[in-house]
Formats: sequence, structure tokens, C-alpha cells
Amino acid sequence: MQLLEDRILQEGVVLPGGVLKVGSFLNQKIDQRLLRDMALEVERLYQGLDINKVLTIESSGIAIASAVAMEMDVPMVFAKKHKTSNVDGDVLTAMVHSFTHGTDYQIVVSSDYLTSDDRVLLVDDFLAMGNSLKGLAKLVDEANATLIGAAVSVEKCFQGGGDELRANGMRVEALAGIASMENDGTITFRH
Amino acid sequence: MQLLEDRILQEGVVLPGGVLKVGSFLNQKIDQRLLRDMALEVERLYQGLDINKVLTIESSGIAIASAVAMEMDVPMVFAKKHKTSNVDGDVLTAMVHSFTHGTDYQIVVSSDYLTSDDRVLLVDDFLAMGNSLKGLAKLVDEANATLIGAAVSVEKCFQGGGDELRANGMRVEALAGIASMENDGTITFRH
Repeated sequence: MQLLEDRILQEGVVLPGGVLKVGSFLNQKIDQRLLRDMALEVERLYQGLDINKVLTIESSGIAIASAVAMEMDVPMVFAKKHKTSNVDGDVLTAMVHSFTHGTDYQIVVSSDYLTSDDRVLLVDDFLAMGNSLKGLAKLVDEANATLIGAAVSVEKCFQGGGDELRANGMRVEALAGIASMENDGTITFRH
Repeated sequence: MQLLEDRILQEGVVLPGGVLKVGSFLNQKIDQRLLRDMALEVERLYQGLDINKVLTIESSGIAIASAVAMEMDVPMVFAKKHKTSNVDGDVLTAMVHSFTHGTDYQIVVSSDYLTSDDRVLLVDDFLAMGNSLKGLAKLVDEANATLIGAAVSVEKCFQGGGDELRANGMRVEALAGIASMENDGTITFRH
């Protein structure tokens, strides 16, 4: 998606350790026009597939997932990273390893909110090693729901998670795919 | 807002300890039509005030804040609850006490994303003791930005936080104000 690639080149900052900082428009501060354009593109990519639920993980996936769900006119569900007092009853859970934080955590969603009737699109902001999408796919599997595919704002292709998921049969669409990222700030995209 | 009140009466569940579970349409699973209607109502309440930024806290505030910002055509910024490796440089911070979790945490936003040029609307899902809004207002104050007001999806009026904030001069709009909530599930609204 040209608009997003242009913005990454203009405002993205490459930090040590393979971190791409896009906080000024995509993450902590979100450009809502760009967000809507991105949501429309995801809706276009997945049209005609009878998706009836969008699933993401808190918290940086919520804005793009919510925008996509709004364009698709379906509910958005987000998995929480810890079991809280607001989650009661039966839950679906999966373990996820965070590349950014170097820790493992549990993701949890109430089994009321993800069921065997659902045709699910996974949405997240970043795809690196693919651990978040793997965890979300496990929730979909536990619920006996149907996984239609995944859409992410930015895929760090060089980390291999997206290609591994594709090799295992998941449809994965990235609005911007980063082929390489150098310490001098040079970013190249995969097309 | 009648639509939201009706939905709370239909699907809201009163849990022990003053917790209202609205996960099936407002929190973990989000009805996107309702979310858009709520965002339009917030936009209507605050129109003509030259708001140029919407500020919230991760993670349950993000969906409504993002929807409001999209209707207002302004950026949305969310404060993070912990300093992560993705936040570098100067940051604004405030301490917040969580009523739900019984803990204190720090909220952090990059000073690049909240500046003295900003006319800020605070948006959050729930208002109980008002601690989240107080923390966000402190960030606005630290940034020398202008606080226009706050909008929340649901105010638990009986916990007093909203009225305390109003008494201190903050404009606070709630789309649904809960006057009382009984253990037998009875909910009454303030109008």
C-alpha cells in the first residue's frame, strides 16, 4: 500500500535491535485518515469471504482491528494479555512469546465472544516472528471457528514469521512488507 | 444516549464489587455500529471547539477513542501503561490508581505526541473514581496543552469521580450515566 510505505519512509525511525518506530502515525499517535484508508484496503482484500468477526490482541492491534471491523460492519474482539476480574466464565487461552519484550504471556478471550459460527479475520499492527498471529489462530482453533486469514499493517519480512505462516497455509496480507531495515535508517519494501 | 442505555439493560451483567460487565458489546467484543453511533454523539457534543487531538489510555479506551478521532478527523494518541522499548526520548508521565485492579501504574506518552499546540479531548470507556481522567489531565497539563473536556462511554455516577472532576472545572460528558447498580442486576440511569 503506497500511502503507508511513503509514510514509513517519511516518519519511521529504525532503532537498534530490529525495532521500527512508527509511533508518530501508526502506533501511539494514530493518523485516523491513514487508518481508515488502511481499513478500506483490508476490507477490499478480504471482500466476499463472509467474514463475521475481527480478532486482535490488546493493545496496539485494537485501533486497526476496530477500523477494519467498522468497514466490514462486523464485531471486533480483542484478546487480553492477562486474565482480569472482568473476565468470568469459560475462556479460551493461548501462550504468546513477545519478540519486542522478550517475555511470554497468556492471551485470553471469553468463549462467549468466539464461537464455531465465526468466520474470523485476524488483524494486528506488526508481524515479525508471527507469534501473535499463531496465538490468535490457536484461539480460533480452540473455538472451532473458521480462520479466513490475517491482515497486518506492517510485516517485517526479514524476520520470517509471515512466510512461515503462509507456508503452513494461512493467508497473510501485509499493507506494507519490509524486506530489509538497516541501522543507517534505510528501509526497503517487498512487493 | 438511549441506544447505549438500552444495550446496557439488555446485555450488561452486574458482578460483585461494583463491576459492570459489558464485554459482549462495548469492551472485549465491540459492536462497531454502536461504536460509530457513540463516536458521532461525542463529535456532536464537542463540535465547534477546535479539538485537534483525542487522548486515551491503553487498552480498553482505544476503540472508542479511535472511533471518536476518526469522526473528528484528528489524530488519536494513547498513553501506555508501562515504559517499553518502543518509547524513546522525552516522555510525559503520570501515576494512576486502578480501581478495577487495585494497583498503581504509570502512564507514559512521548512528549512528541502531545504538545502546547494541542486542544485535547480525553476519551475513555469507563469513568468510576475518575483516576484515569485525572492521570490523562496531568499529561495534558505537563505538555502545556489545552484540555477541552472528557467523554466516556459509561459513567458510574455513584462512585463520584465524574462529579468531582466537574466540581473542579472539567467538562465531562458520559454517553450513559449509571445512577445505581444493584446486586440483583437492577440498573438505573441518571438523566
